[in-house]
Amino acid sequence: MKEIENQNIEKFIAMVKDSNVCMLITSEKNSENLSGRPMGINKIEEDGTMWFFTKASSYKVEEIEESRKVSIAISNESNQNYLMINGTATLVNDKAKMKELWSSIVKAWFPLGLEDPDMTLIKVVPNEVNYWDSSSSTMVMLFNVIKAIVTGKEYEEGEHGKIDFQ
Amino acid sequence: MKEIENQNIEKFIAMVKDSNVCMLITSEKNSENLSGRPMGINKIEEDGTMWFFTKASSYKVEEIEESRKVSIAISNESNQNYLMINGTATLVNDKAKMKELWSSIVKAWFPLGLEDPDMTLIKVVPNEVNYWDSSSSTMVMLFNVIKAIVTGKEYEEGEHGKIDFQ
Repeated sequence: MKEIENQNIEKFIAMVKDSNVCMLITSEKNSENLSGRPMGINKIEEDGTMWFFTKASSYKVEEIEESRKVSIAISNESNQNYLMINGTATLVNDKAKMKELWSSIVKAWFPLGLEDPDMTLIKVVPNEVNYWDSSSSTMVMLFNVIKAIVTGKEYEEGEHGKIDFQ
Repeated sequence: MKEIENQNIEKFIAMVKDSNVCMLITSEKNSENLSGRPMGINKIEEDGTMWFFTKASSYKVEEIEESRKVSIAISNESNQNYLMINGTATLVNDKAKMKELWSSIVKAWFPLGLEDPDMTLIKVVPNEVNYWDSSSSTMVMLFNVIKAIVTGKEYEEGEHGKIDFQ
């Protein structure tokens, strides 16, 4: 089982790495509407955790402060990668982590560099990932952490060998 | 004013027509998660109403029966078109409308043709549209019907001259 599970995480990471951009979807404040904007994915870690740089003064930061439940839609027509990710966002104002994730691409958005006071990180831990399987013309679940929890199976962040894949 | 308003609707329609595919986002049943899947936009009308063909037996139809609030994310890297649309979905099982919207592209998905019993239409009427303005690096509201209603201004579906553009 563990081998299949790791294959799913690896497939997820490979699909994300194949896309330069995603739509980060948050809940609008005082509204039932969703808001979304294109974001470059700075890094995806081996356990699926995703990192983004953003302006601390942006609406999306206010929205995440209000509700940490976010979704990420990836829609890549050129390679037919379509992913829908549900997860939990955390605002991380950690200069050491920013330094680790810093790149020349980020610099284009933050010309002041790492000392920019209006810069923060968004960390998204996915709890459910679905992708489009073109062979079956349907969305297929890659993994669902919530289900692992409610079915009483153990799950610890980072221990993706224990995730209950569908 | 009316001229500017119509320009916004026209801009919206042009951006949608520039994209072959979108992510149609619905609320998962019995969950706080969102579900999304790539969909071809069959038609966008002059007032912004969007039409999709779908299998009547699909999960998304069940989800729309539960909640008609949907979102549409368009993320088109090749032409840098990024749109986030909030709207209300209606399931329309009208053979005359299906005949009007029918095309050879739809036939690829429904080889049985217009007599396929497992076929229905999804009609989405947008209430809020935001798009990515690359010159300001931010999402900008193209229109918001809800705001028109709450501010007491008139709005009738189809009369987009009365929509309150931001």
